[in-house]
Amino acid sequence: MSIKNLSRLSRDEVEALFSSIDTVLTDCDGVLWLHTKALPGAPEVLNKFREMGKRVFYITNNNIITREEFLVKCDKLGYRSMKDDVLTTSYLTACYLHDIGFKKKAYIVGTSGISRELNLLGIKNFGVGPDPLVGDVAKLVMKDFKQDPDVGAVIVGFDEYFSYPKILKAASYLNNPDCLFIATNMDERGPCVINDCVIPGTGSMVAAIETCVGRKPFLIGKPSAYIINAIRKRYNVDPKRTLMIGDRCNTDILLGTRCGFKTLLVLTGVNTLEDVMNWKESDNKEDHDLVPDYYIDKLGDLLPLLT
Amino acid sequence: MSIKNLSRLSRDEVEALFSSIDTVLTDCDGVLWLHTKALPGAPEVLNKFREMGKRVFYITNNNIITREEFLVKCDKLGYRSMKDDVLTTSYLTACYLHDIGFKKKAYIVGTSGISRELNLLGIKNFGVGPDPLVGDVAKLVMKDFKQDPDVGAVIVGFDEYFSYPKILKAASYLNNPDCLFIATNMDERGPCVINDCVIPGTGSMVAAIETCVGRKPFLIGKPSAYIINAIRKRYNVDPKRTLMIGDRCNTDILLGTRCGFKTLLVLTGVNTLEDVMNWKESDNKEDHDLVPDYYIDKLGDLLPLLT
Repeated sequence: MSIKNLSRLSRDEVEALFSSIDTVLTDCDGVLWLHTKALPGAPEVLNKFREMGKRVFYITNNNIITREEFLVKCDKLGYRSMKDDVLTTSYLTACYLHDIGFKKKAYIVGTSGISRELNLLGIKNFGVGPDPLVGDVAKLVMKDFKQDPDVGAVIVGFDEYFSYPKILKAASYLNNPDCLFIATNMDERGPCVINDCVIPGTGSMVAAIETCVGRKPFLIGKPSAYIINAIRKRYNVDPKRTLMIGDRCNTDILLGTRCGFKTLLVLTGVNTLEDVMNWKESDNKEDHDLVPDYYIDKLGDLLPLLT
Repeated sequence: MSIKNLSRLSRDEVEALFSSIDTVLTDCDGVLWLHTKALPGAPEVLNKFREMGKRVFYITNNNIITREEFLVKCDKLGYRSMKDDVLTTSYLTACYLHDIGFKKKAYIVGTSGISRELNLLGIKNFGVGPDPLVGDVAKLVMKDFKQDPDVGAVIVGFDEYFSYPKILKAASYLNNPDCLFIATNMDERGPCVINDCVIPGTGSMVAAIETCVGRKPFLIGKPSAYIINAIRKRYNVDPKRTLMIGDRCNTDILLGTRCGFKTLLVLTGVNTLEDVMNWKESDNKEDHDLVPDYYIDKLGDLLPLLT
């Protein structure tokens, strides 16, 4: 378990590394962009990978947009991409329900990104949008909320309209042990503090629901076994010749470690080099899986090393 | 670690047990009442304890009402009580901040029960009431929310208006490591399913916030060390001559075990006999602390054994 600063490698070492790689899997927010702005140099690096003949895939825990919308964003920010290059957790959630032959209805705590991907595969769903408390809890329980008997799954993703009634409804459906409990991802918070604000992530909402439900969700996104299998099935990757790039160690890097990929941490998002050093020295062996093979301040810094 | 059905004890055994007890500490919701209705026979049992010369105290994780309002409820349901008999977590939270000489402002994710107890001790606070998302997250972050620099504590209790903006605000204040993070309690859900609805508890809201904050709150209520000390300081109890009654093992019974009290589980609330048997047989020794000394179907069943 050693970790190398990619910027400090010689040109020959960098060339040897990248000639041993066929496939690049990359996280997006915190690596390629921060919200609506591309990180400097990152589009050029990804386009350079393609010029070098690498296959490039986007593996994101994002679930608020569809793959189509994701492509529009890529295009706008200068990333050349095709639909098949993109795995979002909204899309993968729809694929999962489709693959298991799910015929019931899904209650969504999340945004229309999930709803629209489900619609594309003909899976009935509802729940997206504001659902504030009207009156009091007694009124909600005794009068306003009646369970829809067709619901067979609760899907939890990022939901800016997250509210007490949504927790209550999700927990009430999930009190039936036959109701599937699916989390798109478990990212605790956004990649950075913006204007002094911490941006709570999907993991925060999942935690609220799993606490009162008393069971764990089936996890779709990084670093779950499900997404690992989805990647293997779709992209036919050779783990030894694959590089996983990310800014978050407990999703991106852990996924890479579990798959036997080479791993590269960029320091433009969630985790710092200090985090990594703590995990490296930790007595808990599981923490060692969070340590990447390489790190670099920002992805754009790779560009001069590749040309 | 044995567990006895109190209803199956002989009259002499029950008499011997209660003659060895001076003080009864009891949980409320799920033991004495369910929401607004007294459980049958429970008021008579508590009043009988008093007639027998026992001291009776209410130890509740409830934080939505003040002690004054609690007394009104007791009176209405037939429980004779005085203010000093009552420890609620809203009251104890105010006591805690008062005792540490807290001079800043508290941001409350919770109800006016907390706010009013803080007001009684002159502690500035805000945050109670609806706070739904207006516009989108970007607007909230960039325009609507500005941190109040006087905030020095975030208090999380039960909040029926729990919402994404509240999680974001709490997490943003708590991103400052000097900001105190206080949870009134961690009860995952209400004592029973009502009209097919699971009622999410404070623990659910705390879980959402601690997940995106990345640190654990200081816990006021059962089974924390803080409430144990508060009980000892106020009531001067002899642990061996004290009985703790509750319906929830990971709060009531665990508190009793930790304090060396005798413990009695009633089966009118959260936990079942099956739960208890699983913990009794568990390989995890910590689970054994959840096993009560005695159980009874409902508190009211004690009445014929006491007269």
